[in-house]
Amino acid sequence: MTSKKTTSPMPISPLAPKKFAKLPAIAGIEVQAMASGSRYRGRDDLVLLRFSKLTQAAGVFTSSKMPSAAVDLSRAHLVGGKARALVVNAGNANAFTGKAGAKAALDTAKGAAKLLDCKPTDVFIASTGVIGEDLDPAPLLAALKASRGESDWLDMARAIMTTDTFPKVATRQVKFGKHQITLNAIAKGSGMIAPDMATLLAFVFTDAGVPAGLLQKLLSEANTKSLNCVTVDGDTSTSDTCLMFATGDKKLDGAPLRSLEDKRLAPLRGALTDLMQDLAVQVASDGEGVSKLMTIDVTGAETDAAARQIGLAIGNSPLVKTAVAGEDANWGRIVMAIGKSGEAAERDRLSIDIGGVQVARKGRAVAGYDERPVAKHMRGRHVNIRVDVGVQLEAKKKAKGQARIWASDLTHGYIDINADYRS
Amino acid sequence: MTSKKTTSPMPISPLAPKKFAKLPAIAGIEVQAMASGSRYRGRDDLVLLRFSKLTQAAGVFTSSKMPSAAVDLSRAHLVGGKARALVVNAGNANAFTGKAGAKAALDTAKGAAKLLDCKPTDVFIASTGVIGEDLDPAPLLAALKASRGESDWLDMARAIMTTDTFPKVATRQVKFGKHQITLNAIAKGSGMIAPDMATLLAFVFTDAGVPAGLLQKLLSEANTKSLNCVTVDGDTSTSDTCLMFATGDKKLDGAPLRSLEDKRLAPLRGALTDLMQDLAVQVASDGEGVSKLMTIDVTGAETDAAARQIGLAIGNSPLVKTAVAGEDANWGRIVMAIGKSGEAAERDRLSIDIGGVQVARKGRAVAGYDERPVAKHMRGRHVNIRVDVGVQLEAKKKAKGQARIWASDLTHGYIDINADYRS
Repeated sequence: MTSKKTTSPMPISPLAPKKFAKLPAIAGIEVQAMASGSRYRGRDDLVLLRFSKLTQAAGVFTSSKMPSAAVDLSRAHLVGGKARALVVNAGNANAFTGKAGAKAALDTAKGAAKLLDCKPTDVFIASTGVIGEDLDPAPLLAALKASRGESDWLDMARAIMTTDTFPKVATRQVKFGKHQITLNAIAKGSGMIAPDMATLLAFVFTDAGVPAGLLQKLLSEANTKSLNCVTVDGDTSTSDTCLMFATGDKKLDGAPLRSLEDKRLAPLRGALTDLMQDLAVQVASDGEGVSKLMTIDVTGAETDAAARQIGLAIGNSPLVKTAVAGEDANWGRIVMAIGKSGEAAERDRLSIDIGGVQVARKGRAVAGYDERPVAKHMRGRHVNIRVDVGVQLEAKKKAKGQARIWASDLTHGYIDINADYRS
Repeated sequence: MTSKKTTSPMPISPLAPKKFAKLPAIAGIEVQAMASGSRYRGRDDLVLLRFSKLTQAAGVFTSSKMPSAAVDLSRAHLVGGKARALVVNAGNANAFTGKAGAKAALDTAKGAAKLLDCKPTDVFIASTGVIGEDLDPAPLLAALKASRGESDWLDMARAIMTTDTFPKVATRQVKFGKHQITLNAIAKGSGMIAPDMATLLAFVFTDAGVPAGLLQKLLSEANTKSLNCVTVDGDTSTSDTCLMFATGDKKLDGAPLRSLEDKRLAPLRGALTDLMQDLAVQVASDGEGVSKLMTIDVTGAETDAAARQIGLAIGNSPLVKTAVAGEDANWGRIVMAIGKSGEAAERDRLSIDIGGVQVARKGRAVAGYDERPVAKHMRGRHVNIRVDVGVQLEAKKKAKGQARIWASDLTHGYIDINADYRS
């Protein structure tokens, strides 16, 4: 862990990890974090990832109808499925900046391409920070040009922080044929975090040999169960981007990989979801003003997607979030949130558990349940809510849709960050 | 205005009206407010409206999948389109109370029917308050039986308050054929307020002669432009109910009324929307913890419904709401909210005005706009946001969908009410 300070005005989240994972090097990936001086003083705010040869690339982006210029550019460059570099800047989102913004993104890609002697379309860009301010590419390009030496992955995770109070990193190593492969990932995000897209900024790197088409399927699948299951405030950024790069250093023997169901992919597939859920939990744990992390398990829904919507309705409800902040096991508000989700749910078969204690069964309170363990659970940092919405399919079969959602609570700290401090 | 005190722990909203409308009597409607002692001490918490003969009835209810027992009962009783009485209790929502709750609602209706010598299906019930607690009908029935004399309409509006800090009343008088007719309305609601349904509790009364089928169409139309355009916290109650009753004392000459487009209905139709928008503004003005009222006008959307969704995305966004509370003209957050609404919007044709000042045009900031009048506007109690989302139809025709939304801001007061005070 480096000794650099973040510029966040807020104290570090009480849910920050005690120590950060140490990310191993991946052959053929060179990491550089640097200070462009564009917006922040005394900290890195710019990252360059160089791939020594063309890597396979995959990506998922914000569903916002107001995407940033960086999202427009990276989405266009992804068509080729190949990458030589990734440039990420913090402090200015280059969003809602019109034609000037599109030009700034393109100029940055061209400058990086010149430096690396590659095509501009092989450069990916992500930008995070203030919306609606013109981005000047000159200081970014000057910093990229002057940059020397290599940085630690953790430095990179720190360099892309905005209102984050801690850097988010995760790593896994698994079997891939006869090889041991590495998965490294970093992310940033604290406010304007809501799902239904590739939430926030997150980047995943591996040395596994997976072709771009399949890499895209792997990433989309894992994303649905991880970053798309996080919510801080239900507000969706214009800049959300998750990119995955595979250098192909470690290749499988035998027939080419063609399908997600190929058994040789199973360890990577499991590890990728696990890795991205690790990031998801870290992002919710650094939600603006967070005092408690909610883990919401939903079962008995019509489909997994319906379960996800129900979980998000609970995790996004200001009344549920404030009740959790107030350590109040107010399960009536959970009922309300399920009811407003719009998804099928059977009121008179609904069950709710808090901290493992049954508080509601068959559409009403459990008479005389022991409130003490529930109250104790609510006083902790981790609040676990489990609901079964009891949907019955035809032939009296119980529906099996399920999902797990991570959400922060809603505290005075969120108001402090977003109302009392002017941006 | 009576001298009764509310039991709200919070100071009265700074946006409360300086004086309340005086509602005239309507022939054939008798109002009684009373104290059942069920939950609150020292205040009325129960209302009985008696109609001297069968009135025409219309209603819209919560879209929640977890409706209260009162909603279930009133929805069922509405099938007949006739009413002799309305009973409303505050303090217990009789929601998520299973079979016992259904029986409590039915017993209340039966008790009232016995008192009035009518059918139980001619009695409508609405309940508001805590979710998940059994409702004992005995004290309600005892109070109904003991009740004598008539109350003021304002007393009735006070008796149904929960976390409201002021009673909501409105009245209009308009031409109806050769008659002058009266429209009286009361409402309650402060938290758990979100649209896409008949929000909160609201009741409208008139002496006009309009058959139930047409009354339903009138109410649904006005509701879409009024109560369904309010949001406090995006949380949808299990108990939302809006009912309208027409005694038929003032009848039209000539052919029976058959269509909303009948010209004789025009004054009533306009006055009803106006009346219900008055209530809508009052509800947003009493949003939990409110410090400022946002009025959000959306134009250039694909349809009116799309404009409404965009306006609600802005009015529900925690980041927009906290920016308004912080008096920060952070229009980047408005862009974000439009982008996440899911409705069509053209980023590069988007315009935003705040307090009548153009801050963004054609998808970017207006260079060098005068920030002083905007800053001054943000310091006031009323914040007006206007966006044109610039959707183009085929043949380069500009889309005309529009809506107006009313929303409260998000302050420490909201957290105080919902986290710091245990319910």
